[in-house]
Amino acid sequence: MKPIALTGIKPTGNPHIGNYLGMYRPALELMDNYQGMYFVADYHALTTMRDPQTLRGLVYEVAASWLALGLDPEKAIFFRQSDIPEIPEFTWILSCFTSKGLLNRAHAYKDAVDENLANNHDPDEGINAGLFYYPVLMAADILLYGSAVVPVGLDQKQHIEITRDIAEAFNRTYGDVLTVPEGIIQDSVKKVPGLDGRKMSKSYGNVIPIFAPEKQLRKQVMRIVTDSKRPEDPKDPESDNLFNLLQFFASPERLEEIRQLYTNGGAAYGDLKKELAALILEEFAEARRKFDALIADKAYIDQVLDEGAEKARAIARPILAKARKVTGID
Amino acid sequence: MKPIALTGIKPTGNPHIGNYLGMYRPALELMDNYQGMYFVADYHALTTMRDPQTLRGLVYEVAASWLALGLDPEKAIFFRQSDIPEIPEFTWILSCFTSKGLLNRAHAYKDAVDENLANNHDPDEGINAGLFYYPVLMAADILLYGSAVVPVGLDQKQHIEITRDIAEAFNRTYGDVLTVPEGIIQDSVKKVPGLDGRKMSKSYGNVIPIFAPEKQLRKQVMRIVTDSKRPEDPKDPESDNLFNLLQFFASPERLEEIRQLYTNGGAAYGDLKKELAALILEEFAEARRKFDALIADKAYIDQVLDEGAEKARAIARPILAKARKVTGID
Repeated sequence: MKPIALTGIKPTGNPHIGNYLGMYRPALELMDNYQGMYFVADYHALTTMRDPQTLRGLVYEVAASWLALGLDPEKAIFFRQSDIPEIPEFTWILSCFTSKGLLNRAHAYKDAVDENLANNHDPDEGINAGLFYYPVLMAADILLYGSAVVPVGLDQKQHIEITRDIAEAFNRTYGDVLTVPEGIIQDSVKKVPGLDGRKMSKSYGNVIPIFAPEKQLRKQVMRIVTDSKRPEDPKDPESDNLFNLLQFFASPERLEEIRQLYTNGGAAYGDLKKELAALILEEFAEARRKFDALIADKAYIDQVLDEGAEKARAIARPILAKARKVTGID
Repeated sequence: MKPIALTGIKPTGNPHIGNYLGMYRPALELMDNYQGMYFVADYHALTTMRDPQTLRGLVYEVAASWLALGLDPEKAIFFRQSDIPEIPEFTWILSCFTSKGLLNRAHAYKDAVDENLANNHDPDEGINAGLFYYPVLMAADILLYGSAVVPVGLDQKQHIEITRDIAEAFNRTYGDVLTVPEGIIQDSVKKVPGLDGRKMSKSYGNVIPIFAPEKQLRKQVMRIVTDSKRPEDPKDPESDNLFNLLQFFASPERLEEIRQLYTNGGAAYGDLKKELAALILEEFAEARRKFDALIADKAYIDQVLDEGAEKARAIARPILAKARKVTGID
């Protein structure tokens, strides 16, 4: 088997093209060199989500999104975190080798504390133990399969460092038992601008959702913010938001033509927006068909995730068994 | 089935008569009114123990001790914590409903912090996440079986309060899912004096071990500290350590005779110590035989604990399944 690359997926719905270009596509491309493992992190979601129906719905939505966007469940191992009871078991064992100080300094927890302090609240007000402990869960997620690499955004770099710390502490006590993983920091060139030119992000409300109904998707594209120049005015393509988005979808030849229109005059924003919408709909035509079929067939998604869980557990069991044996918990 | 009384057992070896009178016996007496569940807390032990052979040995030793001292595995459910994968799974779920502030105030953690501060160390120096998180594990231990009551020493009262807090927080979100347990504070009258008159405790080195070789047990009893009064001197029985220990083992008639000897003169410490040693050896004669047979038959202990784990899991599974269902992790 090829070395394992593990990708954790938060169950958030409605992926947008920023997610696709910045996360889905690079994570799926890892499959060229690695055995890909992808899991929907529903245990993580439980630190904040309180509505069971919403959580279930988001798990199906994100699973359908990955399958529609190219995750091949025959090649990849695709599963739901909560289907692997070995994870929380391993989490407990690892917690006994995790310095509490490491968790005090974890970003997600520190951010929550900072917000409390800014509001003159008790530092731990409203913070649950799951949020605090969650870097250990994440370490278990990674170490349980002997993952070689983990693709992460820059903001998650710390999780890999914590995971490596924990694995090294365990190995110092019991010998070379756990694989110490490497983080692969995702290519930051792929920063996709949103409708308003800031990074495309749900929290900015500036996204182009991939699986929205066609009319809604077109409408979002028409909302891309441009300046007040007329079509015949020359414009700088590089500083234009619409052009930057077109770069990801137009063919090289067509992009060159558009660049000329920008530089020499003739680029009409309205027409180019319509062109971009058409390009996006074309690019994702098959994925959108697949998504609609998948989301209507939850039994199939369950089957895929159940089969993935069996494969994941087959990898996890001997590693957990070894960890139990060396610690004396067997 | 009768309501469940759950007793957690730390894997510490060599029980002494203080353990028996203060913990084993009252915990076993609960079986009159409850379905007793008893588990060896090896996951807890992992927060401090680093030698697998020692941990394994202590688990067998404490299991043999309970069986020898009257735990009937046909009536009680007797198991090893780490044989129940549902426990860490439930621990994770519960942690998302545990206020981190509760854990900051847990005694075991605070004691460790205080010791660090007293030594001018960083407050969390050398403290692992397992130690910090362990009240959540304990809550899972208790809530996973719908335990009605949990016998605890005064020093563990807080654990029950934390467990109740967690169960109530979960129930506030999802309805009446978890049984909120009651603590039964162990009868403090049973405080057994050690050789030197302080509470009998391994940490004071003043114990009479139940399963030590006969010669060693007799020798320990001879070390009981008494004053320098001669046999013929009158003595106050209530303030005498030896007399206080005799109370637990002599028949009421014989105890009355001894009391007279103390009051009127005639009590020879050396003779009375020999008498106490003989009484202890008689009281525990069968238990000592059983212990020796059990500790030589680890396969039998494994079988008992494995069967107990199956019974415990049968109770745990529907409760965990319900917790997963109401949270949406299913």
